[in-house]
Amino acid sequence: MISIGLLGCGRIGQVHARSIARLQGARLTAVADAVPAAAEALAETSGADIRQADAIIAAPDIDAIIIATPTSLHFDQIHAAAAAGKAIFCEKPIDLSSDRAAQCAAVVTTSGVPFFTAFNRRFDPGFSRLRSELADGAIGNVEMVIITSRDPSPPPVSYIKQSGGLFRDMMIHDFDMARFLLGEEPVSVHAVGSCLVDPTIGAAGDVDTAAVTLTTASGKICIINNSRRATYGYDQRVEVHGAAGMLRAANHLEHTVERAGADGFTSAPNKHFFLERYEAAYLAEMEAFLNAVSSGGTPSPSIQDGVAAQRIADAAALSLAEGRTVSL
Amino acid sequence: MISIGLLGCGRIGQVHARSIARLQGARLTAVADAVPAAAEALAETSGADIRQADAIIAAPDIDAIIIATPTSLHFDQIHAAAAAGKAIFCEKPIDLSSDRAAQCAAVVTTSGVPFFTAFNRRFDPGFSRLRSELADGAIGNVEMVIITSRDPSPPPVSYIKQSGGLFRDMMIHDFDMARFLLGEEPVSVHAVGSCLVDPTIGAAGDVDTAAVTLTTASGKICIINNSRRATYGYDQRVEVHGAAGMLRAANHLEHTVERAGADGFTSAPNKHFFLERYEAAYLAEMEAFLNAVSSGGTPSPSIQDGVAAQRIADAAALSLAEGRTVSL
Amino acid sequence: MISIGLLGCGRIGQVHARSIARLQGARLTAVADAVPAAAEALAETSGADIRQADAIIAAPDIDAIIIATPTSLHFDQIHAAAAAGKAIFCEKPIDLSSDRAAQCAAVVTTSGVPFFTAFNRRFDPGFSRLRSELADGAIGNVEMVIITSRDPSPPPVSYIKQSGGLFRDMMIHDFDMARFLLGEEPVSVHAVGSCLVDPTIGAAGDVDTAAVTLTTASGKICIINNSRRATYGYDQRVEVHGAAGMLRAANHLEHTVERAGADGFTSAPNKHFFLERYEAAYLAEMEAFLNAVSSGGTPSPSIQDGVAAQRIADAAALSLAEGRTVSL
Amino acid sequence: MISIGLLGCGRIGQVHARSIARLQGARLTAVADAVPAAAEALAETSGADIRQADAIIAAPDIDAIIIATPTSLHFDQIHAAAAAGKAIFCEKPIDLSSDRAAQCAAVVTTSGVPFFTAFNRRFDPGFSRLRSELADGAIGNVEMVIITSRDPSPPPVSYIKQSGGLFRDMMIHDFDMARFLLGEEPVSVHAVGSCLVDPTIGAAGDVDTAAVTLTTASGKICIINNSRRATYGYDQRVEVHGAAGMLRAANHLEHTVERAGADGFTSAPNKHFFLERYEAAYLAEMEAFLNAVSSGGTPSPSIQDGVAAQRIADAAALSLAEGRTVSL
Repeated sequence: MISIGLLGCGRIGQVHARSIARLQGARLTAVADAVPAAAEALAETSGADIRQADAIIAAPDIDAIIIATPTSLHFDQIHAAAAAGKAIFCEKPIDLSSDRAAQCAAVVTTSGVPFFTAFNRRFDPGFSRLRSELADGAIGNVEMVIITSRDPSPPPVSYIKQSGGLFRDMMIHDFDMARFLLGEEPVSVHAVGSCLVDPTIGAAGDVDTAAVTLTTASGKICIINNSRRATYGYDQRVEVHGAAGMLRAANHLEHTVERAGADGFTSAPNKHFFLERYEAAYLAEMEAFLNAVSSGGTPSPSIQDGVAAQRIADAAALSLAEGRTVSL
Repeated sequence: MISIGLLGCGRIGQVHARSIARLQGARLTAVADAVPAAAEALAETSGADIRQADAIIAAPDIDAIIIATPTSLHFDQIHAAAAAGKAIFCEKPIDLSSDRAAQCAAVVTTSGVPFFTAFNRRFDPGFSRLRSELADGAIGNVEMVIITSRDPSPPPVSYIKQSGGLFRDMMIHDFDMARFLLGEEPVSVHAVGSCLVDPTIGAAGDVDTAAVTLTTASGKICIINNSRRATYGYDQRVEVHGAAGMLRAANHLEHTVERAGADGFTSAPNKHFFLERYEAAYLAEMEAFLNAVSSGGTPSPSIQDGVAAQRIADAAALSLAEGRTVSL
Repeated sequence: MISIGLLGCGRIGQVHARSIARLQGARLTAVADAVPAAAEALAETSGADIRQADAIIAAPDIDAIIIATPTSLHFDQIHAAAAAGKAIFCEKPIDLSSDRAAQCAAVVTTSGVPFFTAFNRRFDPGFSRLRSELADGAIGNVEMVIITSRDPSPPPVSYIKQSGGLFRDMMIHDFDMARFLLGEEPVSVHAVGSCLVDPTIGAAGDVDTAAVTLTTASGKICIINNSRRATYGYDQRVEVHGAAGMLRAANHLEHTVERAGADGFTSAPNKHFFLERYEAAYLAEMEAFLNAVSSGGTPSPSIQDGVAAQRIADAAALSLAEGRTVSL
Repeated sequence: MISIGLLGCGRIGQVHARSIARLQGARLTAVADAVPAAAEALAETSGADIRQADAIIAAPDIDAIIIATPTSLHFDQIHAAAAAGKAIFCEKPIDLSSDRAAQCAAVVTTSGVPFFTAFNRRFDPGFSRLRSELADGAIGNVEMVIITSRDPSPPPVSYIKQSGGLFRDMMIHDFDMARFLLGEEPVSVHAVGSCLVDPTIGAAGDVDTAAVTLTTASGKICIINNSRRATYGYDQRVEVHGAAGMLRAANHLEHTVERAGADGFTSAPNKHFFLERYEAAYLAEMEAFLNAVSSGGTPSPSIQDGVAAQRIADAAALSLAEGRTVSL
């Protein structure tokens, strides 16, 4: 039985608490949040203790730490948890600064603690299966990856001001997916972007509509497109074209009912946003983390995977700012 | 070059004239219609002569007769054309009376003229391919056939009063499709029906919504459902379930554009009605007829196929009237 | 907190135990099974006590009884639980004999205990939504309901010998769905059936392929088709045609990945069988039962719903045996 | 009746001859080809005269010229036809050199003759309808256009050596589609490309896999991807994301039959290549040309549209060669 301490009882922390409740072999022992009411609410539904974050990290009855706090706290919490020898499950990004994230990676590696970067999409049943089929050679050599990722509506501009912008808070998931599917590291990044959805995002110095092209050393190409708004729900699609065919993972619809009438055949919109769409992925990523911890294996995605995606995000931001292709 | 005389210049006669114009190896030599303007219009666009129907049947410069006249004229025209030794392409039904249709079949058989019953749906590329796949064993032994056939809107009640009713003017196509796909003759027929769409149809003694179950000697089952009205266009689907899988032929949509919005994903309605939906089938059935005539082969579907479908329609009408299963 | 006693720790009993664990407001207090190992296994994973069935029914610390035992035990257990004033959640069928099931209904009604007949499919998110859309008038007056229900593979013939046969163990779900969607009681039943899948089923006196037509007093028609085998997984579809359009609830595929190659575009087969396909429905039906119990409402589907579906199954069996339409 | 002279009796010339035969208001009067057998074959099936190309251009009985000759001949034939006052239907590209193409445009404009650049895809019923829906505001302001265009198999390298390469012979259609759908001129072009399909293409200095990103002055983004090989047939898709939703035009499948089995649900591959896929578009483009000529209107797409697409192709080739974004 793995004893878990959860740092951060916000929306995503609650998701992880529910996952733990549904899985065998782990229990949520303690939770912490800077907002007492948040910690209390989650303690109530989960049966966990409320403690201070530092105390949880140091506690001898805790085996693993889930870091679901604001990004600015990750650096210190990772260092402390690594020093305490705890297994770490950390939300992305590791740190807004890739260099500081790399420092975390060095510390984690030295300490030898298991570290899991929570790129939940790798655990989506569709994307996960698509990658398995790639690995089984279903379409031969991968030649082109096309990733479409559109949110239902833009976040408040206050969020964007501290998130690092579209490439670092949103497309970072797609950069990880690109690495996951390409099977090679990108060597060049080219980004374009516009503010078409919400002028306050542009005023804050960010874009809300963007496309990035990655290439690898062997000539594979990946195209990613993002929008902060899609009226038909959360749009999360992957297409991989290879020497022997194409694989696609479809969107998840809200329901299975189709209506036919004079306007044609109408099926449901996409599931609204990430909590609904990636419900199975959140459960599966926690299961993967727990399996790695209990078996003594190395969790994947690793902290190096987290750093690598951030390096691509930095390059994309630079490409957009300077209007040029950036080499990695 | 097969020289063709066309009897009847209405909507379906015009379809056949266009098919002939698009095919090699045949020309439309003469047309006839009781309404002079109809004959003149088709003569104008096709370049054919206008003659009397009797004269066309008797003419030495005519090889084949297309009978696209009102059903009440078919009997005499078939007899005359068979006597004149012409190849015959005849719209269904052969005659409203199955017994009179059988008399036609006897005369045609005795005369030895090629005869083609215009069950156009057999030549729909989807249905035709589905049957080829059945014949190739794609799903093993056929166990169940499900046919859905719904018109976009009901015909005028004046039409129904002389058409023989839903089973004889509409579901007859589905009875032929059932025979085409089952590969066995039905031995029992059970029909239910209601007037739900248009009360004037009920007042005229007919139903506008119906379901028929057929069984064959080996235990295969066919279910057919009809409605005189479908708000989403002409609904023409076939599903065959077999020992090793299922085959389905999908509807034809008006266009390929899909729109996504807050209501979900909307694709086009079905093509509106038979002229649009079966455009390719009309061309292919004429090509099949001409090929049979020019090669000396036996056209298919035959006049016996036409009679057989009418016998099932008669049985369905009897089943509905008496509320019992009818044996064939 | 509703305290629950579970009678029967087989496959479906385990499903219900998992549902209770995932829901708020209820706990599984005690379990019973004639096979000690089965009770022990479920007690182990659920934390419930092991007791005798009779003791559970009588226990003052138990509020509600889940009857998931063999059908032959239902009659006595329903009587005992009703006498003890417990809320009852009962697997279908109530009893193999509709008359004995009706006796149960009378006793339950007299006792006033809440009773829930576990027609899980009503709680499938697709079917449930489809019915809501019907109720909202999405397609106007219902005219035709088409239900397709095919199992992936036939059960052992030993099961069929005690199950009451296809109409009573399999199509009974579809009869309930028909009542659920028609919004009217069937007044006539016509059945055809064959043994095409497994000759030992025929030797045991049953069919494995069947089609039933129901009609209602207002002329609505329902067509149901069943097969004991579908190579592409559990096939569970509903289509409703109405005055203003059509609604369909689609199958659930195993995954969302589509592969394109020289053979075309291939998507996943259906989820294999009921445990996978109706996972959400099993959870939702238990939630509905618990909500009714805790709110003092009347559970639905009721025991009368259970009896009504069995009456239709009896009529279908009679129709098949006698080759005639049976009135209800 | 518009009298047409056809220069070039190869594959695409034959397509145009068939289109003319199916349309009202035009006749194919004369054909020319450097290969006598090609001209003879088409004269035989179409009933047209065989003449020399120069004679056709000069002939007083010819109203319109279709230029379907090798690209190297276009320049002189356009000049001659413009001088002769003939309406011109010209296959793309106008000339391999954009500057020479611009010279043609200047001459055509001065002469005032109607000129139609044969970008057939604009007349595909799906793409054409999609643009109409855009114009009707179906999804509000266009924000992103994604064009996928993959051939079933690469052409012989001999073709590529004289075609101008992927951007000029293949993606040029997509550049025109981008302009057609964006409703604004691209102002920047960024291309990446690889040789992954056929090494002899790389040896000839070209790529066979490529992605291009275009941006417009208002910030709209277009992403185009091309491959010279797709095992599942000719892949021709367009997706447009806008402020109020998304529009997509789907591929055309070879047939409508779907097969279900243990592997899942398989539908047909795409139609093999352009002759099948764009059959309706070829007919519609000829109809549009003839309508413009007979009504005295200005054909569209114009020669300026042809030049504009070539300018983008030039910029894409330069972008790839120099690894940088090119401004237009």
